[in-house]
Amino acid sequence: MPVDVKLWRKRREEAYRRIWEDLEIGYLDEDLLGILLEFFKRPESYTTSSCSGRIVLVDSRMPWERRNATIIFKKHSSISLEEIRGLLNQPVLYRLWLIATGPIIHVVALTAREALRILRIAREAGFKHSGVLSVSRKGYLVELRTGIRLAILLKTGSRVVVDEQGLQEAVKAVNEALSEGKKRLQRLLEVLRKHAIK
Amino acid sequence: MPVDVKLWRKRREEAYRRIWEDLEIGYLDEDLLGILLEFFKRPESYTTSSCSGRIVLVDSRMPWERRNATIIFKKHSSISLEEIRGLLNQPVLYRLWLIATGPIIHVVALTAREALRILRIAREAGFKHSGVLSVSRKGYLVELRTGIRLAILLKTGSRVVVDEQGLQEAVKAVNEALSEGKKRLQRLLEVLRKHAIK
Repeated sequence: MPVDVKLWRKRREEAYRRIWEDLEIGYLDEDLLGILLEFFKRPESYTTSSCSGRIVLVDSRMPWERRNATIIFKKHSSISLEEIRGLLNQPVLYRLWLIATGPIIHVVALTAREALRILRIAREAGFKHSGVLSVSRKGYLVELRTGIRLAILLKTGSRVVVDEQGLQEAVKAVNEALSEGKKRLQRLLEVLRKHAIK
Repeated sequence: MPVDVKLWRKRREEAYRRIWEDLEIGYLDEDLLGILLEFFKRPESYTTSSCSGRIVLVDSRMPWERRNATIIFKKHSSISLEEIRGLLNQPVLYRLWLIATGPIIHVVALTAREALRILRIAREAGFKHSGVLSVSRKGYLVELRTGIRLAILLKTGSRVVVDEQGLQEAVKAVNEALSEGKKRLQRLLEVLRKHAIK
């Protein structure tokens, strides 16, 4: 399946414009800006959706489910016990999970060669779960992802299942996970600069 | 980077032999056998390492860490509270995590076309986090992976942080996660058969 170069260029331009729009409305995580621009400096790459990592409180049967899941709290920086304590009093439909996820970046490469270069950079920076997700007319979609992920069970139905120290430890663990993700992003920026295309 | 066809064939034969050896010594998860053989029926694919999903109890700072991590308990089928209760009494070095992971299968494809076919099959079967991990002389390495993953914090240092019901709920949740993984494997087998190469 050959990539449609014209289509790829058009989408690249749109994606570039969207970065600045998202930044203006506060939708783009500023931790990410430098990295996204580094990708755009490469003539055969651009980024689409990306997330620098986040902490969420979700009511769902299982933490990976999207259907029948309600996000109760979401933050891209570290949380305090006080921020979530009040939310624990509400009864939940299924289970209440405190989840931390590491950074995820989607890159669309024009060529297979560039896709593999991106993969090698990702691995070098500790994004060990990265891979080419699909290939189509639109390009090679590469997902950059770390293994950083925590899902801590706090509550089932109306019953909190952690004690006070458990809650403190949970908050500490998700904050550590988030900060480890940010470090990985910093490394990615360094590796990208090292392998920049002159 | 062109794939070395001779090398690929040699490794495919070795991998095939290993399946039967692993089966004999009880190392291969029998849930997987049908699926692996289905991949070997495809002339341009073979499987290497694979896991049908598992539940582990690990002492580590974070559940994704390999260094400084001690696996205390490991099982490829559902667990009971009694199996792990005794293990909770030991003090741990870092944190004690009860982890469930879904199935992971590594396929080595001979061609890019076959790698993409495998990716589409994976996605259709609910292996949503699948991707091409690398390309080398050895072939296209495709990882099939679901989003199924739980890491529940049970203990930090010498202090258990879940109460009795929390423990029960944790066991229930990891068992559900494991069983969901097995269902995904069943679907993969069906989709593989549907798209079998005649």
